Amino acid sequence: MWTDIGEKSAKMKIESNNGALFHPIGVFRGPHTVPEKTPIQPPFASGSVGRVELKSEYVEGLKDIEGFSHIILLYHFHRAGAPLLAVRPFLDDVPRGVFATRHPRRPNPIGVSIVRLLGAEKNVLHVADVDILDETPIFDIKPYVDRFDRPENPRIGWMANVDENIAQTRGGRGWKKEEKDENS
Amino acid sequence: MWTDIGEKSAKMKIESNNGALFHPIGVFRGPHTVPEKTPIQPPFASGSVGRVELKSEYVEGLKDIEGFSHIILLYHFHRAGAPLLAVRPFLDDVPRGVFATRHPRRPNPIGVSIVRLLGAEKNVLHVADVDILDETPIFDIKPYVDRFDRPENPRIGWMANVDENIAQTRGGRGWKKEEKDENS
Repeated sequence: MWTDIGEKSAKMKIESNNGALFHPIGVFRGPHTVPEKTPIQPPFASGSVGRVELKSEYVEGLKDIEGFSHIILLYHFHRAGAPLLAVRPFLDDVPRGVFATRHPRRPNPIGVSIVRLLGAEKNVLHVADVDILDETPIFDIKPYVDRFDRPENPRIGWMANVDENIAQTRGGRGWKKEEKDENS
Repeated sequence: MWTDIGEKSAKMKIESNNGALFHPIGVFRGPHTVPEKTPIQPPFASGSVGRVELKSEYVEGLKDIEGFSHIILLYHFHRAGAPLLAVRPFLDDVPRGVFATRHPRRPNPIGVSIVRLLGAEKNVLHVADVDILDETPIFDIKPYVDRFDRPENPRIGWMANVDENIAQTRGGRGWKKEEKDENS
């Protein structure tokens, strides 16, 4: 599988025992420094502002990104514990299969968040509605495109039974409403 | 440009504390076997059916997943060429910054697709609207949750200027309408 993607990757294969080795393209900086107090998803972090600091060698890849209002960040759940197959979700008290949740303790701890892009300045992206821990390594930035990423009439399983008020309280994990009102 | 990234990556690899090694949790099987003929996004692969074959040791993690109509797959663009910072998107003729596109030749070649979940059978997930190449290594499966993943009023930059008919033709890359009609 790897053979046609070049010498560098072929070397990676040998070193990595059939896994894939990914290197951060940059780091996330933001106000959430304690895992237990970090909102679990962007809607619970409304108005919370942070930035992606891209390594300078990648800055050319940001061309045209400011046309998009939202970006998809892929990042490392670098402080998640060891993987679990059954987890107790933050929004529920019943253990669920980890692939039916967004819990960070996954076999491959890669997070996905859709955040609001406020602007780009050289190698820095200013973003809002951030549910990402300070100092999180960033693997990829993709534009959010509703034509690709917005399935019709989704059904959301056990999450449909989570009350919206409970979701806001438990999902926000103490992110202050006053701050939200000021910044949003 | 690429040489530069290569050298940087090699250096980072040696420093290496920052790298993260991910192992596939399973493999994708589907009808698209030729990269150049694989639809570029799920909406252009409507009715195309495939499956995720999860390694048996992870099957417990699928509990509760059938409640969700759509899942987010994270996977390896395992046959992408070497990374580029400026790419010519499939839907456009103008070079764009790679982070303003969904092009597979990215610094970390991780793909994200939201596909329709048809059902689960032991370690196999049957999915539809698949834009993923046969034999693609899968890193993660997450439930699609509109409450988390559906930003309001997205603005989509250069993609807003792509005509819908051109998008269907160029995005589908020959995926046959007859098949779509039969299977959808």
